[in-house]
Amino acid sequence: MNIILKGNICYSKTISDFVEYENSYLVCENTEVVGIFSEIPERYKSFPVKDYTDCIIIPGLVDLHVHAPQFAFRGLGMDVELLEWLNTYTFPEEIKYEDIEYANNAYQLLADAIAKSETTRACVFATIHKPATIDLMQKLENTGIISYVGLVEMDRNAPEKLCQISADEAYEITDSWINESKNRFKNTKPILTPRFIPTCTYELMLNLGELQVKYKLPVQSHLAENLSELEWVQELYPECASYAQAYNQFGLFGSEDGVSVPTIMAHCVWCDESMVNLIKDNNVYVAHCPQSNINLSSGIAPIRHFIDKEINIGLGTDVAAGASLSIFRAISDAVQASKLYWRLIDDNGKPLSIYEAFYLATAGGGSFFGKVGKFENEYEFDAIVIDDKDAKSAYPLTISERLTRVIYNTADYKIVDKYVRGENVWNV
Amino acid sequence: MNIILKGNICYSKTISDFVEYENSYLVCENTEVVGIFSEIPERYKSFPVKDYTDCIIIPGLVDLHVHAPQFAFRGLGMDVELLEWLNTYTFPEEIKYEDIEYANNAYQLLADAIAKSETTRACVFATIHKPATIDLMQKLENTGIISYVGLVEMDRNAPEKLCQISADEAYEITDSWINESKNRFKNTKPILTPRFIPTCTYELMLNLGELQVKYKLPVQSHLAENLSELEWVQELYPECASYAQAYNQFGLFGSEDGVSVPTIMAHCVWCDESMVNLIKDNNVYVAHCPQSNINLSSGIAPIRHFIDKEINIGLGTDVAAGASLSIFRAISDAVQASKLYWRLIDDNGKPLSIYEAFYLATAGGGSFFGKVGKFENEYEFDAIVIDDKDAKSAYPLTISERLTRVIYNTADYKIVDKYVRGENVWNV
Repeated sequence: MNIILKGNICYSKTISDFVEYENSYLVCENTEVVGIFSEIPERYKSFPVKDYTDCIIIPGLVDLHVHAPQFAFRGLGMDVELLEWLNTYTFPEEIKYEDIEYANNAYQLLADAIAKSETTRACVFATIHKPATIDLMQKLENTGIISYVGLVEMDRNAPEKLCQISADEAYEITDSWINESKNRFKNTKPILTPRFIPTCTYELMLNLGELQVKYKLPVQSHLAENLSELEWVQELYPECASYAQAYNQFGLFGSEDGVSVPTIMAHCVWCDESMVNLIKDNNVYVAHCPQSNINLSSGIAPIRHFIDKEINIGLGTDVAAGASLSIFRAISDAVQASKLYWRLIDDNGKPLSIYEAFYLATAGGGSFFGKVGKFENEYEFDAIVIDDKDAKSAYPLTISERLTRVIYNTADYKIVDKYVRGENVWNV
Repeated sequence: MNIILKGNICYSKTISDFVEYENSYLVCENTEVVGIFSEIPERYKSFPVKDYTDCIIIPGLVDLHVHAPQFAFRGLGMDVELLEWLNTYTFPEEIKYEDIEYANNAYQLLADAIAKSETTRACVFATIHKPATIDLMQKLENTGIISYVGLVEMDRNAPEKLCQISADEAYEITDSWINESKNRFKNTKPILTPRFIPTCTYELMLNLGELQVKYKLPVQSHLAENLSELEWVQELYPECASYAQAYNQFGLFGSEDGVSVPTIMAHCVWCDESMVNLIKDNNVYVAHCPQSNINLSSGIAPIRHFIDKEINIGLGTDVAAGASLSIFRAISDAVQASKLYWRLIDDNGKPLSIYEAFYLATAGGGSFFGKVGKFENEYEFDAIVIDDKDAKSAYPLTISERLTRVIYNTADYKIVDKYVRGENVWNV
């Protein structure tokens, strides 16, 4: 819609350039940003103005990696590492989504929480179950956010009930799921989702590679999260130069042209330089999930190094290995993790600033969706309006200080409106 | 008062023994716990019963290290290490507390936030300013929590306006502050507070040692937080075997008898074994402030090692190096920091469990105040009542799972009542 938001507007132009505009006008024409103005330009005088004076207006936040069925055990089961965590907590929970009634209830709780969150875009893992996955897509569509949702592919190294019966049956089911879902929703699209190398046979990966070519779908998966996982992948694919190559051999690890296989790899904690180079060369997105990597004792991803290499990076909550859906929390987690990386692992390259992490959470991950995450001309108009009037301060704060305090969850604040492609989807 | 709370009651008996009692009765006689019962014993049948059915009742939480004046810049200024942070953000803010009007307003905001928090006991740093410190004590008294508050001692290596004029004048002012405050409040008591070795001259420390003997006051300070600080102390006291010994030479580092010099040292991130042994031998409390140690890129304290040595440990928020006053957050931070310690520094000794960290936040720090932090006979009756009825779950949770979810801030919950020494002080 055509609308003008009035308030204190800020966003990251680049990773090193955070800008703030006090008491200004953010103009939206149809679904896109026109720009930020100190006075309304003549041409837009007819647009309705929504007055958010004193509020803070920021781009919508992007969660580049989250597991919908795991929301059910968020904040629980934090006592083991990845592989044991999968077997003990994750797989038993995901099996439940065969039951559409259970899934319906659990996914509604997730969708309600995402609707109330600062997230406007998300890349979501479901389970292997097609009916529940389509149900999840409908529920996410209802929240107004824009998302990719993946039917999870796995046919080995997991409980039988959580494995597709065969690679061929997986092909059939995935093919029919893609056809049923790809044009069904305006804002919710399918994404190819091999869980990770250890749970997918060679044949299954071949089939997914075929489906990728057939439908030009984007891809999401996990890479180099945990040391035991890394060893395991090496055992499974001794002929591959790296974990990254294990995906790449099937055409499921980005592409040099940057458009034919859009790919997100979560974690990338333990990447040797050959993997880093393949990530870079193939334009793969890193979904950095700092809290998850801490909760599962995985480690800390070398984000400064990825930034220096100009790799695409966004933030992910990775619920339930990350405890909460908050991308604000992910921003401060990213800063904190980078400080420990600097202190304990490598003091070349400084820790992330809060503004750099904010960039990752907006334009960084947003670019996976197109022109998303900035308040610049032709960018899609995703915005969050934050009211922090109840946050009392002993002295006057700048807009960016107020935002920082919100991000660190040390200000009383509430989200008052959420716009996605120009439409206000807030309904809480 | 005599009262019985009905609800789901849990606490840590020891660091390794977390217990939960569904739908039970917690009996308080005067200011103390009698015990937990599945039915009200005959003897207490006359006590009024407060019905918190479905709520969770836990011991009040203890913040063993927090800086009151720094609340004003919580969540801000997280971009540098300790010594630069002090000069850039902390000292300029603390200078303002010479102005009693500024202090009055800023401390009221802090007191309001503590009143709304899960904290029932706290050890608090003020500034060098006596009037503002007494004002702070009055405000904390009004919240109903029990606290020690320290006039901060410093006479070098800080801006002139934040240094006491001389060691002798510091003695006089501190002496008069102690006399004016020690019997003025029921719940708020003075504690001797040399800021840290670098900001206190030899003469000042001697004087504080004298005051400690004169009044038998407890002591709080900082120890081995940051590597540059550690080097600096070594330069200042080359004759001392360690940073710990620099305090100990003045009688300001605990005592072998465990009662004559009750002492809290915040951080203890970089303690060699001689320091660890002196902490242990002198019964010093470690105030573990995991988030602060991350925000200032200080490092991670070896908490498992301290636990193995049976050292006294509590948790501290260390606002404003820690962003928030939440001890729930400090609990999950402690768990997360210990995981990275295990992964990146030393994989001997496993990470903390959430229940171990919960113990530190209750009985661990509570014991500095006496019999505090457990629901056992003769313990002081401090309790928090948590209503998480709005936290929907896809499947039924145990009490401890519900509490864990509250701690990780992934459940909708509110505190409904807060008891300190048997009195309900909740007034929000």
